[in-house]
Order: sequence, then C-alpha cells, then structure tokens
Amino acid sequence: MKVKYELLKKDKKTSARHGKLHTNHGVFETPMFMPVGTLANVKMLVPEELKDIGSAVILSNTYHLWLRPGSDIIKKAGGLHKFMNYDGPILTDSGGFQVFSLANPKNISEEGVKFKSHIDGRELFLTPEKSIQIQNELDSDIAMSFDECPPASADYKYMENSVKRTLRWAKRGKDTHNNINQSLFGIVQGGAYKDLRELSAKETVKLDFDGYSIGGVANDGESKEDMYSAIDYSIPFLPKDKPRYLMGVGEPIDIIEGVERGIDMFDCVLPTRIARHGNAFTKYGKINLRNLKFREDFTAIEDGCDCYTCKHYTKSYIRHLLVSHEQLAGRLLSIHNIRFLIRLTEEIRDAIDNDNFSSFKENFIEKYNKK
Amino acid sequence: MKVKYELLKKDKKTSARHGKLHTNHGVFETPMFMPVGTLANVKMLVPEELKDIGSAVILSNTYHLWLRPGSDIIKKAGGLHKFMNYDGPILTDSGGFQVFSLANPKNISEEGVKFKSHIDGRELFLTPEKSIQIQNELDSDIAMSFDECPPASADYKYMENSVKRTLRWAKRGKDTHNNINQSLFGIVQGGAYKDLRELSAKETVKLDFDGYSIGGVANDGESKEDMYSAIDYSIPFLPKDKPRYLMGVGEPIDIIEGVERGIDMFDCVLPTRIARHGNAFTKYGKINLRNLKFREDFTAIEDGCDCYTCKHYTKSYIRHLLVSHEQLAGRLLSIHNIRFLIRLTEEIRDAIDNDNFSSFKENFIEKYNKK
Repeated sequence: MKVKYELLKKDKKTSARHGKLHTNHGVFETPMFMPVGTLANVKMLVPEELKDIGSAVILSNTYHLWLRPGSDIIKKAGGLHKFMNYDGPILTDSGGFQVFSLANPKNISEEGVKFKSHIDGRELFLTPEKSIQIQNELDSDIAMSFDECPPASADYKYMENSVKRTLRWAKRGKDTHNNINQSLFGIVQGGAYKDLRELSAKETVKLDFDGYSIGGVANDGESKEDMYSAIDYSIPFLPKDKPRYLMGVGEPIDIIEGVERGIDMFDCVLPTRIARHGNAFTKYGKINLRNLKFREDFTAIEDGCDCYTCKHYTKSYIRHLLVSHEQLAGRLLSIHNIRFLIRLTEEIRDAIDNDNFSSFKENFIEKYNKK
Repeated sequence: MKVKYELLKKDKKTSARHGKLHTNHGVFETPMFMPVGTLANVKMLVPEELKDIGSAVILSNTYHLWLRPGSDIIKKAGGLHKFMNYDGPILTDSGGFQVFSLANPKNISEEGVKFKSHIDGRELFLTPEKSIQIQNELDSDIAMSFDECPPASADYKYMENSVKRTLRWAKRGKDTHNNINQSLFGIVQGGAYKDLRELSAKETVKLDFDGYSIGGVANDGESKEDMYSAIDYSIPFLPKDKPRYLMGVGEPIDIIEGVERGIDMFDCVLPTRIARHGNAFTKYGKINLRNLKFREDFTAIEDGCDCYTCKHYTKSYIRHLLVSHEQLAGRLLSIHNIRFLIRLTEEIRDAIDNDNFSSFKENFIEKYNKK
C-alpha cells in the first residue's frame, strides 16, 4: 500500500501539525525524526535499540547500497527489511545527493550523472530510471525521486534550468516506478529563489506523488535563512493531505523551525556522527564528553533524559570510553542523541496538542542557546 | 565475602569437574569462560548483552584501568561494578602480564617493575603492593596476585629465580590485601619445568589463597604441549575445594583440554579480538566472514546457534557490514563468539553430568578440525 497521512491536530498560530503516517511496516506519528542507516544499519545500533528509543522510521542510502552490497544482493535477501532485520518503515533517498558531490559538473547531462565510485574509482552512471529501479529492488516503504542537487552558490539561470530538469527527471522516475508496495515522494528544489520554489512545488505536485520533500537546504553553503525561506516558499503549494519531508536536517532548532513551517519528517546523520566524536545533545546545548571537566562527573549526560545511556551511565564513564578510544562510547552516545531528537519530536507533538507550540519553541531555544 | 567453590559433579575418567562459584555478585557454574573487558567494557557490548549470552563473569585489566581512567576515579565512582554498570562478578588481573611485555628485563627488580606507559611513555613503577592496592580500589570480586611472567624461552635458572620471586611477591601482596569483600587468587608459575611447577604450586598453596590460577601458558612462544604439561604439573598440588583458573586461554580445544585436566575458569580476548577482524567460531572451525563465498549466503553464521546474531542476521549481511567497515559487524560477531565459548562450557558441564565428557571431547575436536 501507499503511505497515508492522517492529520490529528493543527496548531492554531503556526503551520505546525501533528499527524500520523500509515505505512506497510506500521504507523508512526509526525513530526518525526528519522535516523540514517547509510549502509543498511544505523551505525553501531540494532533495530531493537531503535525501537526502544522510540525511533519509528529510518532512512537508508540508495547510492551506498547500490555500491555495497549491491541491490541485487538485497533483492535476493528478500528486500532491505529482511536483509538488515528491520521491520519498521524505511525511506530510501535517491542517491542524487551523493552522486552530485562526487560528479564533475560537466558530467551532468539530461540523461543522468556520470561519476566515479568513492570506493574503487570505477565509472558509474546514475539516471532517474536507474535510481528508481534500485529503490524498487531495495523495496523500501518510501522511495525518493532522483533530483539534481545544485550548490547553494548556483545562479538564477543555472537553478532555473536545474529545477526544470529535476521536473523532467521526476516524471521519468515516476513512469519507471513499478513497486506497488512502495510509495514515491517528489522533491521540491529551487534554492533560495521564491519563484523557482513555487514553480518546482506546483509542477511536482501535478505529477501526483505520495508525499513531498523539500531539498537543497542541507547541501554545503545554505544559510539558516535560506533553509527557512526555502520551506516558506514551497509549503503553500503542497497538498495538506500528504506528508512533507525536509531532507538532511537534524539540528534541534532547525527541526522546530521546520515544524513551525509545516514539516512532518526530518532526517540527518548528525546525532550518530557527532556521537562518534564525543558530542551529545542536551537541552542546554551540545556538550563534548571528552572535556576534562567531566572526568569525575558521575551524573547522566542530561538530567531527566529517559534513554538507556542516561539511565545507566555517567559522564565520567563515557568520557573514559572516549579518551580510551572504546567504540562503546559512540554506541552509547548515538542512543542518547537519537533519543534526544525523537524526544524533541514527542514534545513538539504534545505542544501542538496542547496549543502551546509557540511557547514551547521559545523556551526550548532560550535554554538551548543559553550556554 | 570470599568466593566459595562448590563441587557438583566430578568426571569419572578425567579430572574434569562441574561446580559452582559463589561470589559477592552472584553464583556461576564452572567450567566457565570469562570475556575480557579490558577498559571497563567488553568491547562494543553492554552488560545486558553479556547476561543474554549467558556470560556470568568478566575479567578486567588492572594495568589499563590504573592508567585510564585511574583507580582513584573508579573508587570515587563507587568501584568498578558501579563505574561500568555491571552487577555480575568481576575478576581483575594483576597488571603483571601487561607490564612485563612493556618492561626492559633490566628494569625488573626485587622491589617491582619499572616500565613506560604505552600511552604517553611516562615512567611507572608497579609493585606487588601497588597492584593489590589498585585492585582493592577497583573493588573487583576476585583480585590476582602480582607475578613475574617470564618468556617461554627462559632457562631453568632464570625460571627458578623467577618462581621464587613470584612467591615472595605473592606473600607481599597477600599481606597488603585489605578488602574483605574481595577474594585473592595465587598464581602458579614455573614454565614447562615439572619440579618448578610443583614447587610453585605447593608454596603458593601454603600462603592460603581463595583460588589458584595457572599462569605462564599464554605468553608468546608456549606450545600447546607446554600449556598442557604446565597444567598437569600443577593441578595435583592444588586443593580440591578451591577454584582453578587457566589464564589467557580461549581457543575452544584448549578450553576442553584444560577442563579435562581440572580447570574451572578461563579468560581470553580471542572471541572479541577475532570478531573485530571478521572471524567467527563455528563447530566446524573458525570462518572469516569477509570471504567472497558468503556474499549470497543467507544463512546464520552457525546452524543451531542460539545467539542473538545467529537468530537475526545472515552471513551475507555480516559480510556486507565487514567489507563496508561498519562497526556493527564487530559487535554482532563478538556476541556470537562469546556465546560460542559460553555454550561450549555449558555443553562441557552437561557432558560431565552425563558421564560422557571424553566422547564429547572426541566428537567436538573431530568436527572442529575437519575443515
């Protein structure tokens, strides 16, 4: 079946909304943060831990899985869920974001993108059709359209042509898509240009996707203002009965800003990546557990946190693991950081239900930025 | 309280025995394999997983904890159990094995061992008293005497002097020991020399420890025959009502050979170390999961294995994680490998109970060496 968005409660003052997304692998509430499982695993964690954390849906990367182990292997395994032993909903990206960072601009043509594998340098060619075929084989619950991801610095002319090409690619991908159990989301591009976002949103919606995402906000170089305007310029043209997904965004404040503008879904490698470098989210901002001041700090990372890590371990212990290069540190911090973002979305949903989203936002940001 | 050994069943044909060890942190059956948690964690795993695996006791390294985070920190945390959130029994080694591999022979004196930290090169001095003081602070359930670990190549004269010094060190350590909740084990040395093993065993027993271990069998250079004779030469002089521990041994066949000779406890980094390199124990011998032949092998690592990894993941998936350098592979393989050795000890105990230890040994070795 295709995903179905159910609205539970709309905020009165803002575009924030609390809803539910029905998928083939269960229902989850939105706004929701999706941890990233690049190579068919959320780094160091197992599905049981993700469930424990309250993480209801993950993102996996088409580009990476295409190269390793290959979508043929995953198909033979019975699809990505079976391959990685995960029975919750999975969203796969299109591979576009990855290949554009590897491709030389002159290798981008109407047909597709030529680039060199980051593993062995062999030349590869990814097209809208191929991206969808791979995702059909992966058998994720939600596939993404293959889009061009131009740099934030692209000028108007380049961006206009790019938006139009992405629309043609979206159509080609949609025509190729043939997995009836898989939903397909369209992607709105257009950089920081209001009219291009409008054009992209309207034309993408005409193609009638199962959901819509806003892309081009978390490449390199976009400012926060660019991100927020990109959402503001796109949302009014997206249907209210379909889910909206802001790609690549995981900073707590950005999630709140996105929700305020009407976003339902977020994904980012941030919580697991910063974890491996010793960083933890807390309501008072990010802290680095390597800091000497935590050497004898026998309290949890964040007071009041209900995650496995905070219930069982101290800052002193995690600091010891970090300075000793013990990988368990990354595992424990990943659990905390993902839980932090999931808990944030839970609190956001409660705030929407209780008609106090705006004051929740204000309080959160004040505390988070205090340090 | 001090540990108490309870004999449940003795094999009729061999010295193998099934017993129970009562400790401050619970009772476990012997023979038992102890995974190694060098730096206050069994690499990548949490205590709940160890419990799940049936692992009832772990070993942690005094040398490593002394350097990082420091025994003062662990004492302030309330002891090693609290620091690492592990409520089962913990055995700490003496640090001897580590410092002897770092020290220049001319820096070994009657007083103790001078060596350079492997982390920052600063000069350190470890004595029998210091080793026991650190272990008292760590507050493990079982502490080990500080012993000299001479190389397998040491000649008779060197070994004789070393055995005698280790006896003097054992006495000094015992006199220093003042943690009434912690047991202290003596260590039998003597290399491959029958009379020195006898001397060491008899004199160590005279000092009246809570248990005895056989050391000097898993340094560099000892042959399997040396290991087996070291046990044979020592065991007859050890009391039957105390536990016997073979240090640093974790190869499945060595465990069986050790049990046959009357050993109750084993420890080794092997299961977790080989896991991080992609190797798995199976009843048909070790396999390396990186092998191309597992690319499309959608079966468990070992048929019939009841571990979390074998119940949920395929060789194909684990191979994918390994070739993609995903740390989850090491975690999943560590679970399997530790469970393999724990299960081996369970099967050994059953075999002893059913009076078929010798045929169990024969069958196991035949299958394991078949490949």
